[in-house]
Amino acid sequence: MNNVEHTVKSYDSELTKLDNAIARMGGMAESLLGQASEALVKRDTALAADVIHDDLKVDELETEINAEATRILALRQPVADDLRTVISALKTSSDLERIGDLSKNIAKRTITLSSGTPIGAVHTIARMASLVQSMVHNVLDAYLERDERKALDIRQQDEVVDQLHTSLFRELLTYMMEDPRNITSCTHLLFIAKNVERAGDHATNIAENVYFLVTGTHPEDERRKDDETSFTGLEG
Amino acid sequence: MNNVEHTVKSYDSELTKLDNAIARMGGMAESLLGQASEALVKRDTALAADVIHDDLKVDELETEINAEATRILALRQPVADDLRTVISALKTSSDLERIGDLSKNIAKRTITLSSGTPIGAVHTIARMASLVQSMVHNVLDAYLERDERKALDIRQQDEVVDQLHTSLFRELLTYMMEDPRNITSCTHLLFIAKNVERAGDHATNIAENVYFLVTGTHPEDERRKDDETSFTGLEG
Repeated sequence: MNNVEHTVKSYDSELTKLDNAIARMGGMAESLLGQASEALVKRDTALAADVIHDDLKVDELETEINAEATRILALRQPVADDLRTVISALKTSSDLERIGDLSKNIAKRTITLSSGTPIGAVHTIARMASLVQSMVHNVLDAYLERDERKALDIRQQDEVVDQLHTSLFRELLTYMMEDPRNITSCTHLLFIAKNVERAGDHATNIAENVYFLVTGTHPEDERRKDDETSFTGLEG
Repeated sequence: MNNVEHTVKSYDSELTKLDNAIARMGGMAESLLGQASEALVKRDTALAADVIHDDLKVDELETEINAEATRILALRQPVADDLRTVISALKTSSDLERIGDLSKNIAKRTITLSSGTPIGAVHTIARMASLVQSMVHNVLDAYLERDERKALDIRQQDEVVDQLHTSLFRELLTYMMEDPRNITSCTHLLFIAKNVERAGDHATNIAENVYFLVTGTHPEDERRKDDETSFTGLEG
């Protein structure tokens, strides 16, 4: 009996450790995105280089979470809530790894940017990044609190990010048409903005993981994950 | 005894069905990418609309595979090879869903493209897409044959895709600088090319899933999944 209790307790603590690892990874991804955005605004190439380097830690954490989740599946053979905890950790760590990777890409393009970069566009990107950071923060809170309503609430923030992205896309095309010397830097900004928008999509994926984790089902109203800029034509 | 045999047999057939579903989903993703590329080359907006519509089927198949994998984990509590089969199916279906989604994005941008699109760039993209199609095809063969060497071989193809992407990126920037009227269509081509390049990355992810499926470990030499264009500066 004592033995059984011990086993059960150590199993619980394994699942708690999985949650903690997700929380840690989420904090790292959130801060990496913030640093990438700061490096862009301040033209701080040293900070950008830090982001590129620190993304490795996010990758390592994903590998650890994968290994631990696989081990729990093999040794504990979880069912019901516990099984969903393990599956959600696997899916969420993959989304967080992507957010880290996108932050790294932003940092790499930041290093390349020339000094003539339109500052208004940079600030719009920083605003998008700050929204996505808060999405990541809130969805991780919702994850740890097992609050599926709070998780789905972040989808409204994602709509704002998508709107900012679409209008920035048009603005950058206009800059390029006005002066060909803007083309290289604006192209990098287009991809940087796209990276931030995709990070928002991954935060939204995590919200759906939380919904699955708590309810065992998937949110019915399929969110729009389309790229609005694909229908944006500006005749030059 | 009879009962046990029956149970074991039906369990085996569940795992085989999971493999079959991955094969079907892989075939759909491969053909969707081919159709998206054909629609781009031929300026066939009806075909592009088909791609956008058919991507739903890929999404449905992912949902089915997820549900079946979760069911097997809960009811059969697989270990060792069988557990890796289920985890690999989960991961691979997620990569294939992304390839379908990227094909849909290519189709959406194709519909928007104006008639002045540089044809040489379009053909380079078609060549990239054809390489990625063959990567998807070969990596799925390797998956079903449990051949991890064959799977990792596709990484050489991905390097060619990345090289084509980097030189196309420079070429498109040059077109834009030469004539501002090219800017809108070239920007869409930049994103289309990026989508094809990312589809290649997902095929490479699947190769790593196959390696894990067969060996239980991850390939040591971390592949380069960096975006080379992020360091491409063309001073205008």
